Amino acid sequence: MSNPSAAILVIGDEILSGRTRDSNLHYLSCELTKIGINLQEARIIPDNATEIINAVKWLSSKYSYLFTSGGIGPTHDDITADCIAAAFETEIDIREDAFKLLESYYFTQKIEFNNSRQRMARIPNGALLIDNPISVAPGFQLKNVFVMAGVPKIFQSMVQSVIPSLVNGKPLLSKSVRIPRGEGEIAAALKKIASDHKNVSIGSYPYNDRGKFGTNIVVRGVDKNELKEIAEVLKSTLL
Amino acid sequence: MSNPSAAILVIGDEILSGRTRDSNLHYLSCELTKIGINLQEARIIPDNATEIINAVKWLSSKYSYLFTSGGIGPTHDDITADCIAAAFETEIDIREDAFKLLESYYFTQKIEFNNSRQRMARIPNGALLIDNPISVAPGFQLKNVFVMAGVPKIFQSMVQSVIPSLVNGKPLLSKSVRIPRGEGEIAAALKKIASDHKNVSIGSYPYNDRGKFGTNIVVRGVDKNELKEIAEVLKSTLL
Repeated sequence: MSNPSAAILVIGDEILSGRTRDSNLHYLSCELTKIGINLQEARIIPDNATEIINAVKWLSSKYSYLFTSGGIGPTHDDITADCIAAAFETEIDIREDAFKLLESYYFTQKIEFNNSRQRMARIPNGALLIDNPISVAPGFQLKNVFVMAGVPKIFQSMVQSVIPSLVNGKPLLSKSVRIPRGEGEIAAALKKIASDHKNVSIGSYPYNDRGKFGTNIVVRGVDKNELKEIAEVLKSTLL
Repeated sequence: MSNPSAAILVIGDEILSGRTRDSNLHYLSCELTKIGINLQEARIIPDNATEIINAVKWLSSKYSYLFTSGGIGPTHDDITADCIAAAFETEIDIREDAFKLLESYYFTQKIEFNNSRQRMARIPNGALLIDNPISVAPGFQLKNVFVMAGVPKIFQSMVQSVIPSLVNGKPLLSKSVRIPRGEGEIAAALKKIASDHKNVSIGSYPYNDRGKFGTNIVVRGVDKNELKEIAEVLKSTLL
């Protein structure tokens, strides 16, 4: 059986405008690789309802899991929850358990629980809440879509809290071999090795070390012994 | 007239597996923002022909410009040029000018110009070459698609060499206002200001400074005076 697949949808203008550099995609990719879920696509789109709805529909139907990041706060540009509801043609309203969580948090903090903050209790029907140990406002899971906050610390803690509920695959392992020869010199032999070992992926990454070209070859697969064996083949053939 | 739009398609397994962290998307977003081209979507996909062809077709028809990064080297996983040709139903073959560039480079370097390296001279019919001042193997432009290398230094120099050929918009300016109050407290007033100023985008980014929540508000638009005016409104309303 092959590993489950996944996509991430990063929602928000700040990465596309260059204001901030992505970290959620990078974090998620590392965590999923560890548990054998193959992240196969990442998309970054602005806070635009049509774009969000279309991307959610497409990516959730194509992959085992979809993770979203961003757009679930209290301000006018936080439209993700409503878009998820629209994508699945589900009702959305203030939900009591989410409301109570937020109400008691703001009460303890002596902060007014106003209308804007109450918006964060809007959850599509049928969704499961995802804990937010940092600022309480929950994420949620609807079908195979996990809707999480954009703030990296909160995103990371939400990822950690959903990981136990995911169907894992075999952890994707990798082995790197550093070959001090340019890609073009080893490409033919490498192609042969790749076509002899179809159930691993072999990537080739050129480097330049003080003017000398070389190649890092990364073999990815789920069988440790097979990776070791291929690494030996790579060394004996290419070094 | 509104600004031209753009998308970037990052091709390669290494970012999705968490092995490397993206830098090309971040670089391009900053450069395009400076010259008034709105980066509206980013996608990251593996070295898979069907995925590349579909994404190129869709993104090149939706936006004014599409920039791709990765997959134009000499190895078996470098399939971008062939996919671009397939997406536009164009022939692709070794092209004489690209071949000569590479031939003379490898001759000078005393490196064999073998079949794998000759593959880098495969250019779709009708494309313009994009200079590669670092390792010579060219990128190319076909219609509104700019096909560039994945190695960040080479990607960056290719971006610099194509920028003069792009139709610029009005540079997107931004102004940030730091409000030492939580998002939920200012959301209602902020929504009103955003709906009063429809031709700028107003983003709201929560921060936590030693336990105190606050909000960075970023106003983006093309008119410097308007941004200044809105910043004053934000300060007088929210501070």
